[in-house]
Amino acid sequence: MASDRRTLLADAALDVLVDEGIRGLTHRAVDRKSAMPPGTTSAYFRTRAALLTGLVTRLVHLDQAELQTMAEELPPLRTVEELVDGMVLLTRQRLTGEGRRRSLARHACAVESVRDPELRAILVPRENAGREAVRMFLTTHGVTDVENRTHTLLTCIDGLVFDRLVNGGEVPREALDGLVAAALR
Amino acid sequence: MASDRRTLLADAALDVLVDEGIRGLTHRAVDRKSAMPPGTTSAYFRTRAALLTGLVTRLVHLDQAELQTMAEELPPLRTVEELVDGMVLLTRQRLTGEGRRRSLARHACAVESVRDPELRAILVPRENAGREAVRMFLTTHGVTDVENRTHTLLTCIDGLVFDRLVNGGEVPREALDGLVAAALR
Repeated sequence: MASDRRTLLADAALDVLVDEGIRGLTHRAVDRKSAMPPGTTSAYFRTRAALLTGLVTRLVHLDQAELQTMAEELPPLRTVEELVDGMVLLTRQRLTGEGRRRSLARHACAVESVRDPELRAILVPRENAGREAVRMFLTTHGVTDVENRTHTLLTCIDGLVFDRLVNGGEVPREALDGLVAAALR
Repeated sequence: MASDRRTLLADAALDVLVDEGIRGLTHRAVDRKSAMPPGTTSAYFRTRAALLTGLVTRLVHLDQAELQTMAEELPPLRTVEELVDGMVLLTRQRLTGEGRRRSLARHACAVESVRDPELRAILVPRENAGREAVRMFLTTHGVTDVENRTHTLLTCIDGLVFDRLVNGGEVPREALDGLVAAALR
């Protein structure tokens, strides 16, 4: 029960961050957003640092779950076209609905994490089903420097998504074709 | 004299943003950072929105000036190697010293701008000497979709820089080689 309450509050904290920005993220705002009695958020997350850590931990969990689901639902990535299909799907998810809100939260937290090593340790790119799928694909296609090529590919996609998050529009398939060509060259 | 004072305060606001985050950006913090009497920042920038606009306007001015200087100091970009040289230099400038601080501020402001169209209008990618140099290069090398290829290339570089800003390290030349290859393919 306590852990469900923590999750509910962390989700509300994510909503506050997205709707009001990092400045608006206070214990009282999370109480209000979650419709909990005043003081509830403070009882579960004593300090603002604890609240931010709870929020980022929840965000990473949701991101990981999304990538795991995608990996299970998509066919194995055999051709370049299948890889680009997966990347098109991922960028769309990250730019619409709940995914868009998480992308916003992720970037806001990444900016905060530059001054906060504890936050960074939770947020740093880690093993996930998407990364593993790209790594497998590049290995199968004979790329030698798989770690760096995978990291560059995913980091560039993050850059393209962030640009669209701010300026609108979709990530064009053509741009993703180019990144895959660069990874395979 | 008034405009010098505004610049000085906008620079102090940039410093506050980088050192203390968007939450720390208050008129009083800028007074303190600029060693001005309390109330000075409020006299020049009435509201917090005005302060943020002043900060972003200054940031864009400094970014533009940096790219202009680079364009004047670098030889014309004729070969792929010369273009990559320029990109290596740019990513280094954006990850060290004053450039690193501006990169941090730029990303924090971009995150804010998602909820703030006025801020976005000032911050949005605009004509600058760097963009123009890449566009010229791709045109000379026979690329047909120059606008989109230029935008993708520069957006991916932003992504690589932001990753290093958070996680440390340099942008490897090899990654920039790949982006140029993708732009020219």
